[in-house]
Amino acid sequence: MAPSMTYAADIDSIKDAQKRIAPYAHVTPVLTSSSVDGLAKGRSLHFKCEVFQKGGSFKFRGACNSIFSLSDEDARHGVVTHSSGNHAAACALAASLRNISAHIVVPNGAPECKVAAVRRYGGDVVFCEPTLQAREEAASLIQKKTGAIMIPPFNYGPTISGQGTIALELLEQVPDLEAIVVPISGGGMISGIAIAAKALKPGIRIIAAEPAGANDAALSKAAGKCIPCTAPKTIADGLRASLGDLTWPVVRDLVDAVVTVDDKEIVAAMKVVYEQLKVAVEPSGAVGLAAVLSSAFHENEEWKDVKNVGVVLCGGNLDLSVLWDALNKSCLT
Amino acid sequence: MAPSMTYAADIDSIKDAQKRIAPYAHVTPVLTSSSVDGLAKGRSLHFKCEVFQKGGSFKFRGACNSIFSLSDEDARHGVVTHSSGNHAAACALAASLRNISAHIVVPNGAPECKVAAVRRYGGDVVFCEPTLQAREEAASLIQKKTGAIMIPPFNYGPTISGQGTIALELLEQVPDLEAIVVPISGGGMISGIAIAAKALKPGIRIIAAEPAGANDAALSKAAGKCIPCTAPKTIADGLRASLGDLTWPVVRDLVDAVVTVDDKEIVAAMKVVYEQLKVAVEPSGAVGLAAVLSSAFHENEEWKDVKNVGVVLCGGNLDLSVLWDALNKSCLT
Repeated sequence: MAPSMTYAADIDSIKDAQKRIAPYAHVTPVLTSSSVDGLAKGRSLHFKCEVFQKGGSFKFRGACNSIFSLSDEDARHGVVTHSSGNHAAACALAASLRNISAHIVVPNGAPECKVAAVRRYGGDVVFCEPTLQAREEAASLIQKKTGAIMIPPFNYGPTISGQGTIALELLEQVPDLEAIVVPISGGGMISGIAIAAKALKPGIRIIAAEPAGANDAALSKAAGKCIPCTAPKTIADGLRASLGDLTWPVVRDLVDAVVTVDDKEIVAAMKVVYEQLKVAVEPSGAVGLAAVLSSAFHENEEWKDVKNVGVVLCGGNLDLSVLWDALNKSCLT
Repeated sequence: MAPSMTYAADIDSIKDAQKRIAPYAHVTPVLTSSSVDGLAKGRSLHFKCEVFQKGGSFKFRGACNSIFSLSDEDARHGVVTHSSGNHAAACALAASLRNISAHIVVPNGAPECKVAAVRRYGGDVVFCEPTLQAREEAASLIQKKTGAIMIPPFNYGPTISGQGTIALELLEQVPDLEAIVVPISGGGMISGIAIAAKALKPGIRIIAAEPAGANDAALSKAAGKCIPCTAPKTIADGLRASLGDLTWPVVRDLVDAVVTVDDKEIVAAMKVVYEQLKVAVEPSGAVGLAAVLSSAFHENEEWKDVKNVGVVLCGGNLDLSVLWDALNKSCLT
């Protein structure tokens, strides 16, 4: 970290990340829909489609920046991480692009489609019990055995810098944005976005969208201190982590508000994303829109004049077998 | 039609259409995926995402061009069409943008989500029996009663010109394309695309993708004469029409080949589009990819050196209630 840095990332580290990942990452499109704007009381929503990022989520930005920031010496024994989801696939893919091995510790019971993605990208999957302790122990054992470097999913400067590139792109694509709504879990994505966006446009509002069943960011902001998420219960399987010691200070200082939504609102927002935007989003990916469509958002006096709102559709990795079963059945009739 | 025109549209009418619809239509993005390229034996696929077009399908281009081509005198009594699907919603939306009324004759049993879209765009829905005769009679009655102008879904010059704008955009976005794969039904989309693409790039291949259960284009090409589709049976509800007298000559002369796929292949391609591209496509919209992934396509000697292939994902209007039912149920547990 540069000595002058207030947080684990700054606008320079984020601009460096943008250059570093440019040969590998997609510049994701921004979609708009007048029908969805109608549901949002006439606000203009600009959907940053990270579902179309490599690996199907924004996580590739952070993983790619982290893995390509390693020296050749550090990289030669590969990387290791523990994750049940999109960070796992992102690390496997970024490691394969750097031609190094990736050991991914996956808790038993992780979504099958996400494990399949890790394997498709050539990652070495190691299962463990679904507790944080078991995950950390398994990852640590692999580190010792192989010399692989740990790539943390969010509480890590290069990861935060990578995620911040979302804001650089989005503000180039839609310079008039007045607010960006970002799903929050460990806080890596919103930290990067808040640091980059407020450096470029100090007046912009950064609003966190959080499942009510994993509301540690809302509780922490209200208390003015970091309160971990102890028993997350939400359909948004990508948003069950707690803030870390590198992301909490950014959330505390640069995130303007947290809007919480329940699982019914998340599914209702997913329906809008599929049916109106035609984007196949996972529950976590729809939480930003759920927040924008909530009455808490509509009724907030502070934002009543905010017209142009960016909404990050952050991931699209979801098991849709119920849909394929129904369609395949209809083929037989 | 200009006297020099060979077909119902030409490159000039298509360029005019592009200017005419520009204030209203989206320039749709092109997506790529290295995972999907792997399934396509290493070809580079460029997905033209007409699912993100206004109204959720390419049909808006043709409807918008047709409706905005009308004189004020002709337009003042509104428009009428009969359609069970995307053309209906497209006409309702284009008419609302021109501030004229749209009467849409819909056969009983049409997909609920498509009827809802017509209503959302302010269209006046009139139900009838699900036969072509009943549809035409109902539309004709409305014409007589109201003076509304008929907007045909595909067998009509301005519609074909509107759909041709897909090719103008796509060749600007991906100049290196060697082939474009286009789902075929009434032939309006592929006619417009073939006319535009071959005018700009004479060597480009235009390949039709057709459900095996509605294979009138394949039969017609093989016979050298237009053979109507009498009893279509396919999950691709948007691809059940027959070629018309304006589209058949274009298909006969400018379409290089027709690849047919069965319903299982269509569902398998949909799964790839949802799971890898993260695009919510309807069955008809996935037929182009199904063709590209078929063995008939892989094994075709004529195309073995074709690397860059455009694939039109033409529509995304699908009833996904099975998915919402399952997700809402999981919220309650």
